[in-house]
Amino acid sequence: MLWLLVAVPLVFAAAILIPEAHTTLFILSVLAIVPLAGLLSHATESVAAKTGDAAGGLLNATLGNLTELVIALAALRAGEYTLVKSSIAGAIVTNTLFMLGASFFLGGLKYHFQEFNRASARLQAGLLFLATVGLLMPSAVAEMDSTSAAAVTQKLSLGLAVMLIVGYGLGLLFSLKTHREIFAAAEHAHNDEMPWPIGLALGTLAGVTVLVALVSEIFVESVQKAAEAFGMTPAFVGFIVVALVGGAAEMASAFSGARKNRLDLSVGIALGSASQIALFVAPVLVLLSYVIGPSPMDLQFAPGVVVMVLLATITAMFVTNSGRSAWFVGVLVLMVYLIFAITLYVLPPRMQ
Amino acid sequence: MLWLLVAVPLVFAAAILIPEAHTTLFILSVLAIVPLAGLLSHATESVAAKTGDAAGGLLNATLGNLTELVIALAALRAGEYTLVKSSIAGAIVTNTLFMLGASFFLGGLKYHFQEFNRASARLQAGLLFLATVGLLMPSAVAEMDSTSAAAVTQKLSLGLAVMLIVGYGLGLLFSLKTHREIFAAAEHAHNDEMPWPIGLALGTLAGVTVLVALVSEIFVESVQKAAEAFGMTPAFVGFIVVALVGGAAEMASAFSGARKNRLDLSVGIALGSASQIALFVAPVLVLLSYVIGPSPMDLQFAPGVVVMVLLATITAMFVTNSGRSAWFVGVLVLMVYLIFAITLYVLPPRMQ
Amino acid sequence: MLWLLVAVPLVFAAAILIPEAHTTLFILSVLAIVPLAGLLSHATESVAAKTGDAAGGLLNATLGNLTELVIALAALRAGEYTLVKSSIAGAIVTNTLFMLGASFFLGGLKYHFQEFNRASARLQAGLLFLATVGLLMPSAVAEMDSTSAAAVTQKLSLGLAVMLIVGYGLGLLFSLKTHREIFAAAEHAHNDEMPWPIGLALGTLAGVTVLVALVSEIFVESVQKAAEAFGMTPAFVGFIVVALVGGAAEMASAFSGARKNRLDLSVGIALGSASQIALFVAPVLVLLSYVIGPSPMDLQFAPGVVVMVLLATITAMFVTNSGRSAWFVGVLVLMVYLIFAITLYVLPPRMQ
Repeated sequence: MLWLLVAVPLVFAAAILIPEAHTTLFILSVLAIVPLAGLLSHATESVAAKTGDAAGGLLNATLGNLTELVIALAALRAGEYTLVKSSIAGAIVTNTLFMLGASFFLGGLKYHFQEFNRASARLQAGLLFLATVGLLMPSAVAEMDSTSAAAVTQKLSLGLAVMLIVGYGLGLLFSLKTHREIFAAAEHAHNDEMPWPIGLALGTLAGVTVLVALVSEIFVESVQKAAEAFGMTPAFVGFIVVALVGGAAEMASAFSGARKNRLDLSVGIALGSASQIALFVAPVLVLLSYVIGPSPMDLQFAPGVVVMVLLATITAMFVTNSGRSAWFVGVLVLMVYLIFAITLYVLPPRMQ
Repeated sequence: MLWLLVAVPLVFAAAILIPEAHTTLFILSVLAIVPLAGLLSHATESVAAKTGDAAGGLLNATLGNLTELVIALAALRAGEYTLVKSSIAGAIVTNTLFMLGASFFLGGLKYHFQEFNRASARLQAGLLFLATVGLLMPSAVAEMDSTSAAAVTQKLSLGLAVMLIVGYGLGLLFSLKTHREIFAAAEHAHNDEMPWPIGLALGTLAGVTVLVALVSEIFVESVQKAAEAFGMTPAFVGFIVVALVGGAAEMASAFSGARKNRLDLSVGIALGSASQIALFVAPVLVLLSYVIGPSPMDLQFAPGVVVMVLLATITAMFVTNSGRSAWFVGVLVLMVYLIFAITLYVLPPRMQ
Repeated sequence: MLWLLVAVPLVFAAAILIPEAHTTLFILSVLAIVPLAGLLSHATESVAAKTGDAAGGLLNATLGNLTELVIALAALRAGEYTLVKSSIAGAIVTNTLFMLGASFFLGGLKYHFQEFNRASARLQAGLLFLATVGLLMPSAVAEMDSTSAAAVTQKLSLGLAVMLIVGYGLGLLFSLKTHREIFAAAEHAHNDEMPWPIGLALGTLAGVTVLVALVSEIFVESVQKAAEAFGMTPAFVGFIVVALVGGAAEMASAFSGARKNRLDLSVGIALGSASQIALFVAPVLVLLSYVIGPSPMDLQFAPGVVVMVLLATITAMFVTNSGRSAWFVGVLVLMVYLIFAITLYVLPPRMQ
């Protein structure tokens, strides 16, 4: 995938030479983010491998969704809160349904049945459920009374953001320290590829993060106009397109794990990534909005979006419950995702 | 039950002689449909037994709810879309809760504990969940904005109908072909009674389908007026009465399986029939409405109905999860059904 | 905890001497109810121990939440239906989430993993789910149409109340009679402490019930004004404060069971108490409202409250499914409770 890196200089050149060619800029920025996300992911894992189990796990857990975070930060600075929120919800749903479902499906095409660690999947699903309950409340409050809801929702979102981060931290304490034996298999499988030397890894981490940040600026600026050109609604773009672009690198790892019959790895990446975005990235964005955003951001989502996140979580709780999968389980999960995608695609913009 | 066939000539005679006696026509048509559905069911199984495993399974899966389909088609032609929709939702809920619950209860009265195949029950529950998500979306969209929702809902319903049929087809591929060993026990138990010779079976299938279609016309015409006479609301009639009449033959099989301690059979019929209606009959009706209906039908249900279908699915997911049942599990499931029935009964018509 | 009994004479004295000091009366009545609830609980168990298995179980099941019932009756007589309803919903959610979560957490701090009886937990969760469906329906009906909903909701609530009590009775028949071997472990563990002689137990039961009733009058009168003084909303008081006060004695037993690695006991108390309130106390209050209340009470709750009860039930179904717990499972459950508490705390009164 490294040859895609050629898109990085191209997108910068295009941004200077043809700043009005939104569709071209959009396509180039997508092509550039995908390999950069791959490099970022490998660099994070290499640093993690060097720093030992607990610290490495912490690093992976914090920087694992760095791409999503950096893209969302660019949108946050631009005041594009609808894009930030739909990309958060979309990343949760896309990781939970598309990444998990495609892993089950691709693995199932090769193996008749595949087993995975139920205890670890159940923890991730539980964290995801907690985050969903947290995301549901501000939206429920906003539903009840629209006149004075804004202030209440804002106060509530701040409180929940702090709480979700505490919950995430305690989850790390549990999975990396007190009960790490449950998660041993998935951890081990993770350090599969040859890690880079620490200097190269740290340098890549720093340099590529800057590049992703710069490309994200162009991406955020061009995405809405390009979406119109393609006939896509803003919700569809944030929910589906941004989520697929931001998670491309992790998807590659998850799918490759499934094809090697290491479904623990795939389930861990898919659900771990979803719960990390819900419990860590989303609250951090709320807190950062007080510092870098034009105004504070809350955690209120459109009712339909909350329903989708809740249904995605219930789907994950249901399909990971047996610890066994076959190709059709993947089809079921992918079809739930497809139903959401179709719905967002046909929904006229003002109804989102 | 065959002596009930005497109602068939009676209902035709009554329709000609006393066309205004709606209550009599309603009762006679119900009495006529029940034994015809039984014959249809036996004929389908006999043809299935002759055509071998995969083709037979396919036939059973397609024609298993022929009675419900024919009744719904009669209502569709008459433009009674509210009746069609409430009978679809009612058939899903009635099969999931009443048929399953009564099987657990009746079996549990005879046996202290009963075991059944969890893997097969889980697949059916998963299919049902997928269909529920599909049915939920158009209603959620319609909730958001009532002015322009109709066109969007229609477009969405068409897309979902195609998708649900594809999902149903892939589910058949999974259960009849690639992973049929999981479902072997339930399949085998099905071919319990002596099959008819193929000629008799095919003849019965054709002839009885025509009879059911004719009786259904009378049933659909008389049901609303008769309901008023009995003090029942249209939603109650569609949801409860039509569903119980249409599913009578399958219920007889499911209950008899439970009393013989073959709960796999009962669970397979109840959940299989529910998911077949949700994933096959309902989408087929949407597609056929473009051809034979006065106008296209969508998949938008009243919010309360969607909640009932979702709760019925969650109930099924919960109670089939352990693979073990006792009489009180049946009581629990039946009481959820009773709560729905009471609610629909007291609801004034204009609130449905 | 018995030294807290000194608050009982103090609260009566204060009610006469300083009837306008609402905050003092509130604090004293809380301090008085907690030890009285403890005595009531021990007296009930002592009588139950003497009367043998089935009758004792029935007694425990009926009087186990006598404190909650007596407090709610005081509020019912005062016509404070909002307080009655929020204390019912709050007791269900507090027992399901706070009592269960804190038991998992406290037990998990001492033991790496703890096991408990899945079958018994599943029955309790099933009963709770049934009650939640029942509580959901009147609220869903009221949502649909606000003009004529009151009469329909009232009729529906009465029907559901009778049904839920029947369901509760059948649940007792199942757990105390036909399938009591499943629940044997939890039962046995219950009769842990030395029972009192029957005369003392019966006398305490009668006398303390009267005292709780008298203190509850003062509590109900003072709670709303005191809440304002503390800056708490009425919903927060009913949902959180009343529920914690009413359940203090049971919480002490549940937590002590968890610390002794008898998690069956803790799960049984927490979920048993929640389902008893949902299926027995709440319907009994509806029926009694026709006799002692100023007007009939229905089972319609605010939409947000119904969502909380439903999410609490799903949480319980999810975490008890594996039959195994560790400290972080407790954290997860407690955090869901905390999210609800924060939401109710920030919600302005007119939005409840």
